[in-house]
Amino acid sequence: MTATRDLTITEVRLTPILVADPPLLNTQGVHQPYTPRLIVEVVTADGITGVGETYGDTKYLELARPFAEKLVGRRVSDLNGLFVVADEVAVDGSRVSGQVDVGGLRGVQTAGKLRLSVVSGFEVACLDALGKALGLPVHALLGGKVRDSVEYSAYLFYKWADHPEGVAAEKDDWGAAVDPAGVVEQARKFKERYGFTSFKLKGGVFPPEEEIAAIRALAEAFPGHPLRLDPNGAWSVGTSLKVADALGDVLEYLEDPALGTPAMAEVAAGTSVPLATNMCVTTFAEIQEAFTKGAVQVVLSDHHYWGGLRNTRELAAVCRTFGVGVSMHSNTHLGISLAAMTHVASTVPGLHHACDSHYPWQSEDVLTSRLTFEDGAVRVSDAPGLGVELDREKLEFLHRRWVEDDGSLRDRDDAAAMRVAEPGWVTPAVPRW
Amino acid sequence: MTATRDLTITEVRLTPILVADPPLLNTQGVHQPYTPRLIVEVVTADGITGVGETYGDTKYLELARPFAEKLVGRRVSDLNGLFVVADEVAVDGSRVSGQVDVGGLRGVQTAGKLRLSVVSGFEVACLDALGKALGLPVHALLGGKVRDSVEYSAYLFYKWADHPEGVAAEKDDWGAAVDPAGVVEQARKFKERYGFTSFKLKGGVFPPEEEIAAIRALAEAFPGHPLRLDPNGAWSVGTSLKVADALGDVLEYLEDPALGTPAMAEVAAGTSVPLATNMCVTTFAEIQEAFTKGAVQVVLSDHHYWGGLRNTRELAAVCRTFGVGVSMHSNTHLGISLAAMTHVASTVPGLHHACDSHYPWQSEDVLTSRLTFEDGAVRVSDAPGLGVELDREKLEFLHRRWVEDDGSLRDRDDAAAMRVAEPGWVTPAVPRW
Repeated sequence: MTATRDLTITEVRLTPILVADPPLLNTQGVHQPYTPRLIVEVVTADGITGVGETYGDTKYLELARPFAEKLVGRRVSDLNGLFVVADEVAVDGSRVSGQVDVGGLRGVQTAGKLRLSVVSGFEVACLDALGKALGLPVHALLGGKVRDSVEYSAYLFYKWADHPEGVAAEKDDWGAAVDPAGVVEQARKFKERYGFTSFKLKGGVFPPEEEIAAIRALAEAFPGHPLRLDPNGAWSVGTSLKVADALGDVLEYLEDPALGTPAMAEVAAGTSVPLATNMCVTTFAEIQEAFTKGAVQVVLSDHHYWGGLRNTRELAAVCRTFGVGVSMHSNTHLGISLAAMTHVASTVPGLHHACDSHYPWQSEDVLTSRLTFEDGAVRVSDAPGLGVELDREKLEFLHRRWVEDDGSLRDRDDAAAMRVAEPGWVTPAVPRW
Repeated sequence: MTATRDLTITEVRLTPILVADPPLLNTQGVHQPYTPRLIVEVVTADGITGVGETYGDTKYLELARPFAEKLVGRRVSDLNGLFVVADEVAVDGSRVSGQVDVGGLRGVQTAGKLRLSVVSGFEVACLDALGKALGLPVHALLGGKVRDSVEYSAYLFYKWADHPEGVAAEKDDWGAAVDPAGVVEQARKFKERYGFTSFKLKGGVFPPEEEIAAIRALAEAFPGHPLRLDPNGAWSVGTSLKVADALGDVLEYLEDPALGTPAMAEVAAGTSVPLATNMCVTTFAEIQEAFTKGAVQVVLSDHHYWGGLRNTRELAAVCRTFGVGVSMHSNTHLGISLAAMTHVASTVPGLHHACDSHYPWQSEDVLTSRLTFEDGAVRVSDAPGLGVELDREKLEFLHRRWVEDDGSLRDRDDAAAMRVAEPGWVTPAVPRW
C-alpha cells in the first residue's frame, strides 16, 4: 500500500557552533559576544537528514557524543526510546550524573535536566527526519495544528550599544537601552520590525524602582498591550510583592520574581498578579509541589528544558489538568528551534499567551532563509518536517568560529563577560534586592 | 522524496452491532445476552480504511452520526482536531449537552464523557488508517513501543452457568461461579487457557464476607499472584476499610470500594492498601481533586473513557508527574479495542500493573482472526496500523442481529437483564453494604 522506507538512523552529525549575541544584560551579567549552540543532524538509511538544535556548552557536548553513538541503528520513529537511551548514557557517564552545573538561569541544576536538553536536540532532529520521510509536517506528527500561526512577544533587554571595547564582536543596530526611554525605544523597533504586540522585559538588572519605571513607560507608550517583567528570581518576597503591587494594573504576568517554589508560593499568596516561571518548575518532578502550593499560575514551557516537543505537549496536558496556564520560554536560539517551537505551539490547545523568542536578537543563523515574524506571529509550516533547510556554508562558518575559539567562549558565562567591562564582577547573591 | 498520499477522509461508516455476552454479575445486575458496540470505519481518498470501536448504545450513536458527517473532508492525521469537532457536535446537539445518562458503572455521568467515548472510536480508526497509509504500526504513531508485549490480568466474574431460561442467548463453556470454589475454578481456566497470572474479581455482587472468602481462596490457590477486587463503589467507607483490613496482605490494589472522591479519600486515609479507580477519576477534570486529596493510588485508564490513545498517554503523563500509578480498565469490547489498548499500553513507560480486558469473555468478534494471549500477554503488532483485519461477513452478521433486535437490547441495561431472572429487581442503592 505504501513504498517501503527505511527509518533506521545510519549517521548522526554533531556540529558545535558559536553564534553572535548582542550585549544583553541580565541579573548574572551580560551575554558574551558569541554563544555556543549544538546543531544535530540525524541521517536515515534512505538518505533523509533531520536537524535539531540545543545548548552547545562543553557539558552538553560531552553527553551528546555518546548519545549520538547509541542512536545509530535505531529508528527516527522511536521517540519514546530516546529516554531509554538517555538513561543508558546517564549510567555510562558517571561524570554527568547527580548534581552538575548546567549553567544559566534555570533553577536547581541537575544532570537530569542536562540529559533532557540533549534529548530535545535529538528528538527534534528525529521528528524532522520522520516528517520528511513520511511527507508530513512536524505538527502533524504531534496530532496536527489547531492554529495556523503562533504569536510571539517582543523580548526586551536592557542592553549596551556595544560589547566592551577590545572584544571581538559583531555589531548590531539596536543601540543602547539602560533606562525607561531606551526600553520604550527598543520596544518601538520590535513593533516596527516584527509587529509584536506583547512585550517582555528581562529585569533583575537595575534596582526594582527603575524597572518599575520602565514597565510604566511601556504601559504609557503601548496602552492595553500585555506586559511582562522577568528579574530571574533576583528579588526577595517583600520586593516581589512591592513590584506586583506597583505594576498589578498593567502586568499580564510577573515572571520568576523570587527564587524557588516556597518563595514563589509566598509571593503568589500575597498578590493577584499571576506568576509565571521557567525557573522553579523546569522538570516534571518539580510540578507537584509547585502546583499543590499554588506557586505558579503560568508555566513557561521550553522544549530544550523538558526533553522535546512531545514532552512539551505532555507538560501542557498536566498544566491544563490543574488549571495552570502555559506560555513559552526562550533562551538564545536559532531558526531550527524557532521552527520547532512554532510547530509544537501550534498543536497545544489553550495557549493563551504569546511565546517568548530570542530569535530577533540573533543576526546569524544556519538556515538558507530566516524565519519571519508577521504581525508578531510565525506562520506554521505545512512542508514536510520542520520546513527549514540547513545552509552548510553558514554552518561551517559558525563551526569554524567554534573550532578557532581558544575555549573562552565555548561555555556561556555571563558573569565572565561582565568582568571584561567591570573587573571584579561576581554573580550577585540572590535575593539581590 | 515520498509518494504523495492523500490522507483526506472521504467516507465514514458506522455499524452498530450486538455481540454475545455471558451472564456476568455485577452490583447493578447481570450482563445482557447481547451487548451493543459501534464499529467505526474511516476511508481515505487513497482507499485506505481504518477501524475503531466504541460503545454502541443509542445515545452514543446519536452523537457519532453528526460527528461522522463532520469528519468527511478532514485528514486522518488531524487528531487534535477531533476534539474541535467534538465541541462543534456538542454545540449543534443540545440534546446531548449537560448531564445525560451515559449508563453503566463510570461515575458521575456527563455529556462530556459521552463525547470523549465517541471521539475514542474515531481516533482509533484515524490512527489505524494513518498507520496503514504511512506503513507504520499505531504504536510508532504514539512514539514507539517500549515493550514488545503487554500483560493482561484475568477478569474474574461471579457468573451464572446460563442466561435465564427462555432468553435467546449464546452458550458458553465457563460454567457457573457463585462461590469461592467457583471463582477459583474460573481462575484456573483463565490460567490454563491464556496464561494469566494476575486475577481481578468483579465484586459488589455478594455480601463482603463472601467476596473476602473468594479472594482468600484465590490467594491460597495462586500464592504470590497479584489479586484485585472491584465492587464498583458498592461499599460504605466503613465496609471498605474492613475489607481492606481483611485482605491487605494479598491485594495488589482495591478498586473503587466506595463511590466518589471524598469517600475514596476517606478509605485511602485509613488503609495502606492502594486504591485504584475507573469511577471517581474518569476525566481530566476529576484529577485535581482526587490527586490533591490522595484519594487514588492507581488510575485505571481506558481509551474509550479518556478520548483515545493519545489522551491515554497524556493521562499517564499526569499520573507519572504526581506519583500515581497507571493500569487499564476494560468494559465489554472486541479485538479492535484490544489491539488499540495493546498499542497504547506498549508505549507507556512505568506501566507497573497488568491491564484488564473482557476480551476472553467475548466469543464473537469482527476480525478475520482473534487476538491471542500468550503467558497472559498480547504481543504488540508491528504491522501497519492496528494490525487487525475486519471480517465483513462477521460484521454483517452481528449488525443484522442489531437491526433485527426489537430495541430491548440496543441499550445495555444490566438491571433490566436481572429483572428477567428476578422480577422486581432494581439497581441497589449505594452503599449497598
